[in-house]
Amino acid sequence: MKFAQFYEDSGKVRVGIVAEDLLLPLDFEGDLVDFMSQAPESYPFEQGIPLSEARLAPVITRPSKIIALGLNYKDHARESKGEPPREPLIFAKFSNSLTAHGSPIQWSTRLTQKVDFEAELCVIIGKSVKDLDENQALEAVFGYTCANDVSARDLQFGDGQWVRGKSLDTFCPAGPWVVTRDELGDGSGLAIRCRLNGELMQDSNTSQMIFSVPKIVSFLSRHFSLFPGDIILTGTPSGVGAFRQPPVYLKDGDVVEVEIHGIGTLTNPCKVLT
Amino acid sequence: MKFAQFYEDSGKVRVGIVAEDLLLPLDFEGDLVDFMSQAPESYPFEQGIPLSEARLAPVITRPSKIIALGLNYKDHARESKGEPPREPLIFAKFSNSLTAHGSPIQWSTRLTQKVDFEAELCVIIGKSVKDLDENQALEAVFGYTCANDVSARDLQFGDGQWVRGKSLDTFCPAGPWVVTRDELGDGSGLAIRCRLNGELMQDSNTSQMIFSVPKIVSFLSRHFSLFPGDIILTGTPSGVGAFRQPPVYLKDGDVVEVEIHGIGTLTNPCKVLT
Repeated sequence: MKFAQFYEDSGKVRVGIVAEDLLLPLDFEGDLVDFMSQAPESYPFEQGIPLSEARLAPVITRPSKIIALGLNYKDHARESKGEPPREPLIFAKFSNSLTAHGSPIQWSTRLTQKVDFEAELCVIIGKSVKDLDENQALEAVFGYTCANDVSARDLQFGDGQWVRGKSLDTFCPAGPWVVTRDELGDGSGLAIRCRLNGELMQDSNTSQMIFSVPKIVSFLSRHFSLFPGDIILTGTPSGVGAFRQPPVYLKDGDVVEVEIHGIGTLTNPCKVLT
Repeated sequence: MKFAQFYEDSGKVRVGIVAEDLLLPLDFEGDLVDFMSQAPESYPFEQGIPLSEARLAPVITRPSKIIALGLNYKDHARESKGEPPREPLIFAKFSNSLTAHGSPIQWSTRLTQKVDFEAELCVIIGKSVKDLDENQALEAVFGYTCANDVSARDLQFGDGQWVRGKSLDTFCPAGPWVVTRDELGDGSGLAIRCRLNGELMQDSNTSQMIFSVPKIVSFLSRHFSLFPGDIILTGTPSGVGAFRQPPVYLKDGDVVEVEIHGIGTLTNPCKVLT
């Protein structure tokens, strides 16, 4: 099942189910975090609206945290000349970076001149959990979506700490919707691709991840209490712009697509502000 | 004025005003983030309860983000052999790390053996803002509190990325209350001290900060939208445990106090889990 968040005319965020080219608004007061927290047994839905006419929101609008993994694909660890980590390498994105499918990734050239894309499988936590074993970990996963871990490389590598360059407003597109875990299991074996203006830039499979989703969720839960709506970005495969010869950075008018088999395609245009 | 959050018997978080040794619960439905967002013009309060009998909560329980600064005191930049940064050096703490005045800082020795303290002046953002000039920046500040940027040094320096070692549950004590900006201006000129089991470990003044509060808030707002309840830890002075000879790490039964003139004292015992 596919859950999306959308904006009402009033600006309020609501939850709907995506069925083919329709969005079916749920008769439920609250956003997807409320929905997962309350876990209602039934949820009648209202008359569908064409998906193309819905104003989609990011799949989660108020996570308690966005946890991201560095160097979690063997090929990407090689291209960035990083050693494959022995434990998951954790960094953060601030939640102001979230943006919806179809909305622009935007930045000012006064802040950064080196903006890069990273296609990632994104895990959405559905329960409050702590200290999970690997074999329990999937029970905490509500579902999966596509994310783009947009990165200002000049800020990221200049600071050493990655969070500033990874957290500018709009630097975490996530969507278009969440596919529930029953359809995707542990999230392995999924083709993952990134296209820039139609050209294939990243082309891998989630089975190439060094740490699987159950390992990641268990590891994180031993450090941090996890809550419904928490977002985990599971790392990017090879092919990002910064490690190409010559490097490729995003520019005004570019269109970036993150496609994951079984989920869909997250598309965002780029807009450079002065 | 001093605002605190406290727990009702039901576990619900409420807001109160601290007046001498009394906590005066506000007749207001919601937590301090709701209170700042709604900015009611008047707020009657209920009969006071002895502060010593109130169960205090962290001053904010659901920030959209906790932003922290590294190396923002000249003396601490020297002791850690880091160059004083030319721009604020940003890192993140996940909000599961928040804990209240009086509650234990706790950790498992399976995760870390090198837990350290860092006394910090903590800024609480009161408005939704973006792209503030320095001379506007203070308008976004609701008030100030004391924070302890507890740090698992083995994880922090092992990862290179600091967020994991800084974000274990209970690793961000913040409180006991928020003192509103009208009493403390730009937060400069305040004596800041850390005591470990009564012994003075850090003894400085917020005027030693490399970047002032208005500079920090303006800088951050140019990168990230800031929201009511966002927490900014403004860096720690010299004297932390890791850079002492020999190093001093926290152990079971220790008591850490962060005292800032004009705010009060944040006290937390330490508890080592097996």
